[in-house]
Amino acid sequence: MASTVGNAAPGKPIAIAVVGIGKIARDQHLPTIAGNDRFRFAATVSLSGANEGVPTFKTIPEMVAACPDVSAVAICTPPRGRLALIREALAHGLDVLVEKPPAATLSEAEAIAAAASGSGRVLYATWHSRAAPGVEPAREWVSGRNLDKVTVAWKEDVRVWHPGQEWIWEPGIGVFDPGINALSILTRVLPAPLLLDEATLGFPENKAAPIEAALKLTDAAGVPVEVDFNFDQRGPQTWEIAITSGDDTLRLTHGGGKMELNAVEQPLSSEGEYPRLYARFAELIDARQSEVDLSPFRLVADAFLLGRRTTLAAFDWNG
Amino acid sequence: MASTVGNAAPGKPIAIAVVGIGKIARDQHLPTIAGNDRFRFAATVSLSGANEGVPTFKTIPEMVAACPDVSAVAICTPPRGRLALIREALAHGLDVLVEKPPAATLSEAEAIAAAASGSGRVLYATWHSRAAPGVEPAREWVSGRNLDKVTVAWKEDVRVWHPGQEWIWEPGIGVFDPGINALSILTRVLPAPLLLDEATLGFPENKAAPIEAALKLTDAAGVPVEVDFNFDQRGPQTWEIAITSGDDTLRLTHGGGKMELNAVEQPLSSEGEYPRLYARFAELIDARQSEVDLSPFRLVADAFLLGRRTTLAAFDWNG
Repeated sequence: MASTVGNAAPGKPIAIAVVGIGKIARDQHLPTIAGNDRFRFAATVSLSGANEGVPTFKTIPEMVAACPDVSAVAICTPPRGRLALIREALAHGLDVLVEKPPAATLSEAEAIAAAASGSGRVLYATWHSRAAPGVEPAREWVSGRNLDKVTVAWKEDVRVWHPGQEWIWEPGIGVFDPGINALSILTRVLPAPLLLDEATLGFPENKAAPIEAALKLTDAAGVPVEVDFNFDQRGPQTWEIAITSGDDTLRLTHGGGKMELNAVEQPLSSEGEYPRLYARFAELIDARQSEVDLSPFRLVADAFLLGRRTTLAAFDWNG
Repeated sequence: MASTVGNAAPGKPIAIAVVGIGKIARDQHLPTIAGNDRFRFAATVSLSGANEGVPTFKTIPEMVAACPDVSAVAICTPPRGRLALIREALAHGLDVLVEKPPAATLSEAEAIAAAASGSGRVLYATWHSRAAPGVEPAREWVSGRNLDKVTVAWKEDVRVWHPGQEWIWEPGIGVFDPGINALSILTRVLPAPLLLDEATLGFPENKAAPIEAALKLTDAAGVPVEVDFNFDQRGPQTWEIAITSGDDTLRLTHGGGKMELNAVEQPLSSEGEYPRLYARFAELIDARQSEVDLSPFRLVADAFLLGRRTTLAAFDWNG
């Protein structure tokens, strides 16, 4: 019945459709949904067609008409154009989980947040790195402590992680595709607001997006935060945040998957990021509550706005 | 008495201090305050010292201690660092008017809005071009009409308007210093949200900020909006917005100071932008209501985020 759409009772599986069947949907969303009792994978919406063992549709309205029990969607399409999809989903009474970043521009992200606000539907704008097991323990450690310094090193080889994916060099993405994950952790762990003081962005001479970025920020307490993003990192790959307080140093490594205090590894949950995201989505649906924090995306825009640009050697996929 | 701070009754002049005594304060704020019965110019806060015929102080707390009747401030310092000043003003029970743009970064602007929200104080984030006399009539003309196209040409010579001011070439400003005025009009006149589809930013090879920008946007109804910003305009200077609906064209010229419908000039109020801003500030104080719209600033950040960069010939102040 229409009146129950989007109001699945706790305990009853939430019928969910996945919109946009690409790499992230197949690698993360579909297996996670399959492994979570709270959800039932019911349909896909895919322009290119998808064959995932459930009915597939070209549009959200077609899916809703054929599958009236579906009460939630996961939006896994590319960032551009998500506003229209999310509006359609909300208008059809669906709760919405959206991949990071929620949109291609801040104006579109704000419009998405505004569309959800007051719609009576749940919008969960996810930041998967915030669901890494070290993030909440790090936040607790930071709470009430006087910090001296925070440093971030987020360095990976784009050739390994995005082989041949030219879209990564479209204007506005580049090294901030992984970098926004670090910013999503920082904005969760440190007291808000985190503000950008200065930035330098290095662009390969043959590309329209930065391959490296150095940011200087300050947290709400005035603590300096130094950020080093690199997309041209050979050898060991690094996704680390180090937080110093007096003689103590807390270190998140492996993108928040591991945590050391004064070089001693701390026990953490072994639950993965996406299982935690979907557990949270179920909680939000139960509570009829949205969760939308655009602060990581805002910091990226600020880095582009204030960033001093330098030109680097040409990038070569085979270089 | 402390209990009346920020709650001046209508009819009783609002004692106001001006924070940051530079060109914009002297050219616009001081004469406007002098000409508005609702306000009484009571003090200045100026690090460099100011001699405007009223007591001057180095800090807001010093000013408040010496002038307990002051219930409002106008923040005319440069964008960077306004968050700390506005927090201080709000904490001392002052209502706040702030020059455009409200901050140097979006994160800081959001933090300013958050600080004001729930403080019980009034925050008025001004966009002076929105107070141009053609803006509200243009908004009314647009309302309920099907638009076909909007074009913006905002072209001025930086050598004339900012002679020798090197700060204009710091990263993140450039041609968007005037351009944001056009965006503040567009976001008021057209139905929200206005979204950026693509942008090209031209940087002089010797400068860190763009000297020209071309933006393609879409309004809430899908109407295409083409924007052409230029900071290297010799000869006639142009600040125009043309809105086409069927056979009709409405044209705002002179930055919104004049309006033509099908090439026939329309009657407009002759009141200036700053007198209107201060009249609005008095209204907001009477109503205990804030007015903060960051959408023009967000579009600027989006243009930097998505903008494709081109390199142009070196800029020469004497060129």
